[in-house]
Amino acid sequence: MSAPELDPEVAALAARTAEFVRDVVIPAEPRDRSEHGLDETLRAELQTAARAAGLFAPHVPRDLGGLGLDLRGQAAVFEAAGYSLLGPQALNCAAPDEGNMHLLEVVATPAQRDRYLRPLAAGETRSCFAMTEPPPGAGSDPAMLGTTAERVDGGWVINGRKRFITGAVGAAFTICMARTGERIDRGEGATMFLVDAGNDGWRVERVMEMIDRAFPGGHAEVVFEDCFVSDEAVLGEVGLGYRYAQVRLAPARLTHCMRWLGLARRALDDALDYVAAREAFGAPLGELGMAQRMIAESVIDIESSRALIWHAAGVLDGGAHGRHESSVTKAHVAEAVNRVVDRAVQLCGGWGVSTEGRLGRYLAELRPFRIYDGPTETHLWAIARHALRVRAGERDAEVRG
Amino acid sequence: MSAPELDPEVAALAARTAEFVRDVVIPAEPRDRSEHGLDETLRAELQTAARAAGLFAPHVPRDLGGLGLDLRGQAAVFEAAGYSLLGPQALNCAAPDEGNMHLLEVVATPAQRDRYLRPLAAGETRSCFAMTEPPPGAGSDPAMLGTTAERVDGGWVINGRKRFITGAVGAAFTICMARTGERIDRGEGATMFLVDAGNDGWRVERVMEMIDRAFPGGHAEVVFEDCFVSDEAVLGEVGLGYRYAQVRLAPARLTHCMRWLGLARRALDDALDYVAAREAFGAPLGELGMAQRMIAESVIDIESSRALIWHAAGVLDGGAHGRHESSVTKAHVAEAVNRVVDRAVQLCGGWGVSTEGRLGRYLAELRPFRIYDGPTETHLWAIARHALRVRAGERDAEVRG
Amino acid sequence: MSAPELDPEVAALAARTAEFVRDVVIPAEPRDRSEHGLDETLRAELQTAARAAGLFAPHVPRDLGGLGLDLRGQAAVFEAAGYSLLGPQALNCAAPDEGNMHLLEVVATPAQRDRYLRPLAAGETRSCFAMTEPPPGAGSDPAMLGTTAERVDGGWVINGRKRFITGAVGAAFTICMARTGERIDRGEGATMFLVDAGNDGWRVERVMEMIDRAFPGGHAEVVFEDCFVSDEAVLGEVGLGYRYAQVRLAPARLTHCMRWLGLARRALDDALDYVAAREAFGAPLGELGMAQRMIAESVIDIESSRALIWHAAGVLDGGAHGRHESSVTKAHVAEAVNRVVDRAVQLCGGWGVSTEGRLGRYLAELRPFRIYDGPTETHLWAIARHALRVRAGERDAEVRG
Amino acid sequence: MSAPELDPEVAALAARTAEFVRDVVIPAEPRDRSEHGLDETLRAELQTAARAAGLFAPHVPRDLGGLGLDLRGQAAVFEAAGYSLLGPQALNCAAPDEGNMHLLEVVATPAQRDRYLRPLAAGETRSCFAMTEPPPGAGSDPAMLGTTAERVDGGWVINGRKRFITGAVGAAFTICMARTGERIDRGEGATMFLVDAGNDGWRVERVMEMIDRAFPGGHAEVVFEDCFVSDEAVLGEVGLGYRYAQVRLAPARLTHCMRWLGLARRALDDALDYVAAREAFGAPLGELGMAQRMIAESVIDIESSRALIWHAAGVLDGGAHGRHESSVTKAHVAEAVNRVVDRAVQLCGGWGVSTEGRLGRYLAELRPFRIYDGPTETHLWAIARHALRVRAGERDAEVRG
Repeated sequence: MSAPELDPEVAALAARTAEFVRDVVIPAEPRDRSEHGLDETLRAELQTAARAAGLFAPHVPRDLGGLGLDLRGQAAVFEAAGYSLLGPQALNCAAPDEGNMHLLEVVATPAQRDRYLRPLAAGETRSCFAMTEPPPGAGSDPAMLGTTAERVDGGWVINGRKRFITGAVGAAFTICMARTGERIDRGEGATMFLVDAGNDGWRVERVMEMIDRAFPGGHAEVVFEDCFVSDEAVLGEVGLGYRYAQVRLAPARLTHCMRWLGLARRALDDALDYVAAREAFGAPLGELGMAQRMIAESVIDIESSRALIWHAAGVLDGGAHGRHESSVTKAHVAEAVNRVVDRAVQLCGGWGVSTEGRLGRYLAELRPFRIYDGPTETHLWAIARHALRVRAGERDAEVRG
Repeated sequence: MSAPELDPEVAALAARTAEFVRDVVIPAEPRDRSEHGLDETLRAELQTAARAAGLFAPHVPRDLGGLGLDLRGQAAVFEAAGYSLLGPQALNCAAPDEGNMHLLEVVATPAQRDRYLRPLAAGETRSCFAMTEPPPGAGSDPAMLGTTAERVDGGWVINGRKRFITGAVGAAFTICMARTGERIDRGEGATMFLVDAGNDGWRVERVMEMIDRAFPGGHAEVVFEDCFVSDEAVLGEVGLGYRYAQVRLAPARLTHCMRWLGLARRALDDALDYVAAREAFGAPLGELGMAQRMIAESVIDIESSRALIWHAAGVLDGGAHGRHESSVTKAHVAEAVNRVVDRAVQLCGGWGVSTEGRLGRYLAELRPFRIYDGPTETHLWAIARHALRVRAGERDAEVRG
Repeated sequence: MSAPELDPEVAALAARTAEFVRDVVIPAEPRDRSEHGLDETLRAELQTAARAAGLFAPHVPRDLGGLGLDLRGQAAVFEAAGYSLLGPQALNCAAPDEGNMHLLEVVATPAQRDRYLRPLAAGETRSCFAMTEPPPGAGSDPAMLGTTAERVDGGWVINGRKRFITGAVGAAFTICMARTGERIDRGEGATMFLVDAGNDGWRVERVMEMIDRAFPGGHAEVVFEDCFVSDEAVLGEVGLGYRYAQVRLAPARLTHCMRWLGLARRALDDALDYVAAREAFGAPLGELGMAQRMIAESVIDIESSRALIWHAAGVLDGGAHGRHESSVTKAHVAEAVNRVVDRAVQLCGGWGVSTEGRLGRYLAELRPFRIYDGPTETHLWAIARHALRVRAGERDAEVRG
Repeated sequence: MSAPELDPEVAALAARTAEFVRDVVIPAEPRDRSEHGLDETLRAELQTAARAAGLFAPHVPRDLGGLGLDLRGQAAVFEAAGYSLLGPQALNCAAPDEGNMHLLEVVATPAQRDRYLRPLAAGETRSCFAMTEPPPGAGSDPAMLGTTAERVDGGWVINGRKRFITGAVGAAFTICMARTGERIDRGEGATMFLVDAGNDGWRVERVMEMIDRAFPGGHAEVVFEDCFVSDEAVLGEVGLGYRYAQVRLAPARLTHCMRWLGLARRALDDALDYVAAREAFGAPLGELGMAQRMIAESVIDIESSRALIWHAAGVLDGGAHGRHESSVTKAHVAEAVNRVVDRAVQLCGGWGVSTEGRLGRYLAELRPFRIYDGPTETHLWAIARHALRVRAGERDAEVRG
């Protein structure tokens, strides 16, 4: 992973991360037996090892104990961590905590920072982010937000139901998006609230049965019922919840891409090992043209994904919101990493669809990524409208010329 | 499913099968809770219902209690049955039993027919087919067959290990392919043996953990260790095992295609129901162009699959071995039905990747079909060589004039 | 091309057509030098030969001198004819004449039949069909029809402009679609008129420069300016023009598919010959896995196209309008034959993109087929809406029980 | 085209190039009427304009009158130039001259530099590069090189035939690859020679008829017959011709990608303009989901292409040979830009396949790029072998610990 775009220090850190994953994290994988993500003991143990190796919390500011990498730096390190499903847990840079840390860092008050961000960044707590709702509520279309927060004396009362809430079980707090205005428009009309796990007005109704199981706590349906929170629970300004969601969204999409890219590389490596070892028709599978085509297409998928991630990360590091770039990257990478894993399965034949190899599981872990953080089709729609708008602007400029 | 190619009686039978699946089989689906295929009680109950409805064993000759359909007739009925994962079980036309029945019907002696085929056709027993081996044994390349049968006094002794043996647990007998000659060549050098479940020289070593779980008994690794069988256990002639495998292979590929095509239709229907009910951006999802594109592509995949199946079935019904046609059909259908399910998942978003809906499971059930019965790439290789050979023949004919 | 679906007589006719194309038509190809389709002399010469071989006008009723094949019969023969770009010209079954013959046969009065259909079927004249208009006129959306016909004393006066009118130059008459009602709705509001080439109110404004050039007369922009026609020029009933267009449309789509399928086979054969003769890296190209994959994918494209064509032809032969089946077939075949030619080009490398080989030209000839007779996307839209409607009907039926 | 990767000066230069193309080059396009590339008068006029605008020869070292950009700089400027087929001609950075300039700059003696490179860089001459041969000669497999150079008194005598030699007509000199050793192996055994246009032993036998026509001089078949050249004609060291070919190859691939990416953007812009202006079914085409999908996929193709180009350019600028990166980039970009143009054609319907719009021509201009400079399949093969080799190395390292 040396590349002209990488700072040598970052490249060295990524290399050390890769070694750590190979020597410490991967050997721990067989111990990961829990239904939803790894058990907390193993998670703590791996985080201790990562801390000792100087690799903990690469994205967290130095004053909070992290390595203070910008997004380009994260791109290299998160990919290396994502090579194992446990890697991001070990480095405390897994979703949804990593995105929540970023959001809190930008928006939280000093008190909220101390109370919520500091222990989260230290790996002492987990968190969740409650935005998506069951139909006909908020999904791809934010205007359909159904959860409400009503102002009452000394605070707010939240009512609503959320679905696909990753990590809700075991989270110390949830960040809840609720409607606080008449209309949801241009990023206004909704507010984010910090709700403690101990709050009686909040409960996990059930853990949903999903095809993936790598996220600690799984994906839950949660209910807010006359859930009172004080004014101190408001995250940022009242009414600007969707603007802050944007703050979280673009980088969170990219960091997902980074981690899953690492897993795609793992899948390809598994397949490369398999085709080197297995023969058919008198030659190693790896010498067959059809296998080579699949391998090469996966390499191209991986390298084009990385190139887009690094570009988008650079745009965001430069201060732009990068909504278009993160959409392009997410749409491409989500499809690409799924293709890579699918080809790896196909290259490995029966072993590929067993769950004794890893690939069968990776298929299930990666498939939802084409849907969450915006289904591919929603991104395509946004990308097309952006292109039409930009081009219309160019035509106008020429006319006015 | 009315079509000019269908005999009206067959069309009526297929329609009745569809009703039976809708009214009897699908309501039983929630009771299907076992890890590997449905439990035997539920299976027996559904078979009784199918028998009562006059739909049992559509592919079995009338003298054995079946409906005596040719492959074209099976195409229509098996697709209707495959609309539920339990449908083929109910009709006793699921793999691998259905293919074994066909093989026994063509090759078995009258005594073997009575002992093995009759109870199998009646749904009283299950069976398995043991050909694939762990590396470096027989997979896509039959020449690598490692299991041997040595002639001894009064019979044979089989030694070897087989893998991915569907339905081995609970099978009353297995059909085992073993090397009985020096060289495997042009369909000669191997022999098929009927091995009873009670034979001490045979055991299921483990059920493999695979991503699918619809086949009763799962997929097992089985071991033959000094497994003695008498001469009566030889199926067909000694040495011609691979020729008989061909007898089984082409129709078995097609019937897989038929059943899975039914499931693909189910997946599309689930998605059609979903997009009709769910709104985004002010319109039902089904009115969005991107959703419509996915729907239409799935319709084309389904209808082209059916057209190829019916054509190939007609070729086989006409007496040809249909190896080329069944390869083309299997390669196309296996990819097509997987695309259909994948698009259905994508259309249904979060619900699609939950296992609360059916689609997440269908993804896992269908994925291996691109690998078993010949990976797509093996079929592509055979199809290309066939095309090159046919065209070379045409060139030769032109030169000779 | 023997197949269970084919009547032996039809199979024999298709075989004789293939021989005729090989022995008579292909040797004439080097003499085809005209810019837009072959010159009329060569066309006449080939038609004489086809008549002598008993192959002329296979789709035309016997009483008009044809072979009277139904659509399934045409499927086999037209594919064989389409193996050369000149084949359909030789058999007088090329577009747009072939579709016009069908339309006239169904709709024309006896007098119109004598005057227009008889000489057209005999190959003595050519014709054209004028429906598409320049924007914002009629394209995929018939409601935008801009050309009008006003009733006047003793007839009608047509005004309007049509574009992409294939074969207008040299046509003896054109069939013109014009608005005769207030609203275009449910196939009503427009009327078809037969306009003689000698009519002063009609002119070819220019032949459009298109990437294809196989259609005699090319594709023209034509203008109707105060074009008077008598009442005898009305084709069918006033106001039902779009209904008759449907009569022409579905079979005309299918016959396009049949002919282009023949050309796709030719392209694949060219590539098969090339890869058999040319070596790289110590082996014939045809033994390289990447080449084999492309070959096999093309075989699947060809055979699935044929299977869909035969199925749809059977549906139409059975008396159904077959709109859905012809849409599915057209959308699949147009994409498939283009993929086949594209792969053939790629397999042949530099020779493939030269116009010294045939493939470079075939690329250009086939590309527009993804657009005319309904762009693929328009068909996908229709297919999706059909699927949604059918499924909604099933849900309603289930609710009503 | 502002981006974090771009030096602000380079970004400004690219922006000025884009303006120059829009204001000067595109208006000259209608005057480009020649069969093979633009006529020399127009070329000279545009180069004068580019010189005046300070944009001439961006890749040429400053001491030779150029702008001295490294490959990353070229990436931005060449893409802007490629937005018109005439842009690279105007800036004197078109193939094959641009690649030849780079080769001469690295390998030529001072005398050769003065005689060949200086006038070429100044736009006073054109050149060609003669490597590919008719079968069974050198194509994808260099070992098949058939052209020989025999050492004679005072020089060499070249004999052989070359094919697809771009720009041979009108070239002041050709760089000819000839066999000078027994075996072609590891880049040794062949030598490059500079052959003047006036040399009697050299002739253009014919200009090949290809589907593209944007390269001045077209693509020719050339013959070397007892072609005597002096020792001064040897380019670089005897025997190392293929090593120098590598020097030329990787950057020449990338610069092709850069220029064609510009044309792909043009095609997309044409389509965006079209769908914004044209309506169907009551809305602009650009608001239809199917159109939006095609637009968005093209945006992703363009942005992933650019990201890979910039990455590979950075690798080469850093001094690495970048063979792998340039293969990945070429394979992806060649396919991607062809998809973009194909979608643009489809979006524009009938206008897309007319040659009155530009898109029909772009289809033909871009198609060969999937074949020359290494067919996509050859690159896939190289990429797969690289991946297998790298991974085998990692396994070895792990074993050795």
